[in-house]
Amino acid sequence: MNIRLYNAKILSMKEGQDVFEGEIWIKNDRILYVGDGSDIDQIYQKSPDACIIWDREIDCKGNLLMPGFKNAHTHSGMTLMRSYADDLPLDQWLNQMIFPVEAKMSGEDIYHLSKLAILEYLTSGITAVFDMYLTPESIADAFDDMGMRCVQVGGVNDFSQSPEMVEEMYLKLNKKSPLQSYVLGFHAEYTCQRKLLEQIAALSHKYEAPVFMHLAETEGEVAGCRERYGMSPVAFLDSIGMFDYGGGGYHCVHVTEEDIEIMKKRGLFAVTNPASNLKLASGIAPVSRFLERGVRVAIGTDGPASNNCLDMFREMFLVTGLAKVRQKDAQAVDAFEVLKMATTNGALAMGLEEADSLAPGKLADLIMIDLRQPNMQPVHNIPKNIVYSGSKQNVIMTMINGKILYENGTCYVSDSPESIYRNAEQIRQRIIK
Amino acid sequence: MNIRLYNAKILSMKEGQDVFEGEIWIKNDRILYVGDGSDIDQIYQKSPDACIIWDREIDCKGNLLMPGFKNAHTHSGMTLMRSYADDLPLDQWLNQMIFPVEAKMSGEDIYHLSKLAILEYLTSGITAVFDMYLTPESIADAFDDMGMRCVQVGGVNDFSQSPEMVEEMYLKLNKKSPLQSYVLGFHAEYTCQRKLLEQIAALSHKYEAPVFMHLAETEGEVAGCRERYGMSPVAFLDSIGMFDYGGGGYHCVHVTEEDIEIMKKRGLFAVTNPASNLKLASGIAPVSRFLERGVRVAIGTDGPASNNCLDMFREMFLVTGLAKVRQKDAQAVDAFEVLKMATTNGALAMGLEEADSLAPGKLADLIMIDLRQPNMQPVHNIPKNIVYSGSKQNVIMTMINGKILYENGTCYVSDSPESIYRNAEQIRQRIIK
Repeated sequence: MNIRLYNAKILSMKEGQDVFEGEIWIKNDRILYVGDGSDIDQIYQKSPDACIIWDREIDCKGNLLMPGFKNAHTHSGMTLMRSYADDLPLDQWLNQMIFPVEAKMSGEDIYHLSKLAILEYLTSGITAVFDMYLTPESIADAFDDMGMRCVQVGGVNDFSQSPEMVEEMYLKLNKKSPLQSYVLGFHAEYTCQRKLLEQIAALSHKYEAPVFMHLAETEGEVAGCRERYGMSPVAFLDSIGMFDYGGGGYHCVHVTEEDIEIMKKRGLFAVTNPASNLKLASGIAPVSRFLERGVRVAIGTDGPASNNCLDMFREMFLVTGLAKVRQKDAQAVDAFEVLKMATTNGALAMGLEEADSLAPGKLADLIMIDLRQPNMQPVHNIPKNIVYSGSKQNVIMTMINGKILYENGTCYVSDSPESIYRNAEQIRQRIIK
Repeated sequence: MNIRLYNAKILSMKEGQDVFEGEIWIKNDRILYVGDGSDIDQIYQKSPDACIIWDREIDCKGNLLMPGFKNAHTHSGMTLMRSYADDLPLDQWLNQMIFPVEAKMSGEDIYHLSKLAILEYLTSGITAVFDMYLTPESIADAFDDMGMRCVQVGGVNDFSQSPEMVEEMYLKLNKKSPLQSYVLGFHAEYTCQRKLLEQIAALSHKYEAPVFMHLAETEGEVAGCRERYGMSPVAFLDSIGMFDYGGGGYHCVHVTEEDIEIMKKRGLFAVTNPASNLKLASGIAPVSRFLERGVRVAIGTDGPASNNCLDMFREMFLVTGLAKVRQKDAQAVDAFEVLKMATTNGALAMGLEEADSLAPGKLADLIMIDLRQPNMQPVHNIPKNIVYSGSKQNVIMTMINGKILYENGTCYVSDSPESIYRNAEQIRQRIIK
């Protein structure tokens, strides 16, 4: 498909580029042109294969085009447990409510439940997710069938999956298809014996590949690790070579200055999940400190059992709001910085450099934001409008890999919402009710 | 208009009543019937004037009817400054950015700017607001013209309005019309000389009426008050008789146990504004402590220059999330408690007892929540779905005073969104650009 999007405002998220008026051309899965239109003649001369016959030309009516949001930590299949296990601390929530239900879920269940999450992603402008859950192949099938980009991460712990399975999935799914990939990882230090952690570190060395995991989420986790190994989780994992090829941690709430120094040195990403950290009373991550020390921050919703929605707008406001109140400084973490976390840094954390901004040659993963809704008026400053007053309601188009999967209230995917809701309800009745 | 809403789930917010399936009848501005339909014959016998000819019968298709949200603290006319003065602490924000712009705003400007806020209220399920701003008469006109319920509060300080004006407006607007009212108030202790505060307290005594104000919002405000009077703002205002007839404070972030004791004794409402308190780095209010001590809590968005959106869903999540993280207790302030604050308590704070729940004889201020959107599936628990994963996108109908003002994406009001946006933009160009 060749698609021309014209009469738009564009927030490319390219370093140093402000919002400008212009147009974007899409050729199949790639961006062919982003600009104000004044240099189109040159473009035609330079690329004789430029698409001249458009399959579709979309008048954006002055609305905004920007990169889709990258949800850099989620567990899509947990839609089953939305509003099922709330108002509990993390250890009780996990051990008494979540794990027993998960023990009953099949790969097919997770396929259907992931599709429910995908509907939420598409309608709220999320174009790629970093997903950790139980059955990687059925998850990849769900995302493939819906046309959505997903990077999965190994989620092994002492009682589910295995290092062999992580390696098998890595070989099978890493850069498997234009839409699906897989990176090394494990659930968390506190759910894995030392031997298991060393096996994952060995895989990292074998494939020279980064590793991701839940990291320093709660005070209890950090205290337990100190008891076990005399070190913080960041320092301990670093000491066994887990971070020699980079990677990152989800949550990173309870980290010391020394931990931040290690994260900086190893080029780790701190993936913050503020709604989940509030709801489980885990704490407030030191996002300002990460930025000050040069640790790249990305943003994730965490799963729907601990958040409970999959809405990057709520997360973006929380990232800046919580940083401001934590630092007692209303200037902390401005809106543009947050947008960079929610788009560029998320893409980089997932290994999706080709989806980090809107520029020629990049993957065509973008969204349209309706500026003509009351929460976006008047238009003093578009990045601030998006972060401080924006809502998923403002998303009126979501394009992934050059395909429009959501537009003006309708999802253009392989399965209908009603059928997806029905499947989720049947699973709920079977497993929980 | 006689409207029958059937095939609904109903969350009445009546004490002790869970979600049930049933229908609601509206006769003009009032609710005539709320129930499961089994007792309809009795109703007809008891009230011969029951509406038998319906102007409209709405199949709710299993979606939820609940009381509209009461936004218990806002400054609607500040839509002009949305995304204009961000990332600043409260004193700089107010003195260097907000006050100079406000000095240039006319009553007509505020009329148009309030309408922009009203669009946001209607589309997000807010059916009444507690508004403090500069020109009460033009504000009442805006809400009247749009058909929305508004209780205004006196906002006098040392450099705008006067006690005489507050009294005049009280006499003119208190319970002025079915939709408009006005209660006594002033901006805040830190913007009013003692004499002015005593004049407001005298008005409260004269009319035996409650008083509302910004209260204990920042550490600086509390420190200043202690310097001026040797007491906290709550204790000082109480010492001059300000709370003898009740009322309440907006924000209430920095309060002591003694302050909470005074608030309990005087029956004050604590109106919490969590998004604003984060964005201005003011702090996190002790909502759990208010509940434990029996102080009623309501929720407000604050104005669009300090939030920057007018979205009670974001506020509701923040109220519980911030309480959990502040108390380090994931059980703190559960979802139902939050819904009570956002509906019943807001109504009671504003003096709108007739809009506190869905029951026969109450005002017909209600909303419909679409349960068939991905963030509301599956349906384990409706109150939790609304508070933890709900979004204004889920609001598909807003009824105020028996009239449907918003339905499925369209506002049925006197002015079009495009015309309201155009007016706001013209004001912006004249005053700021």
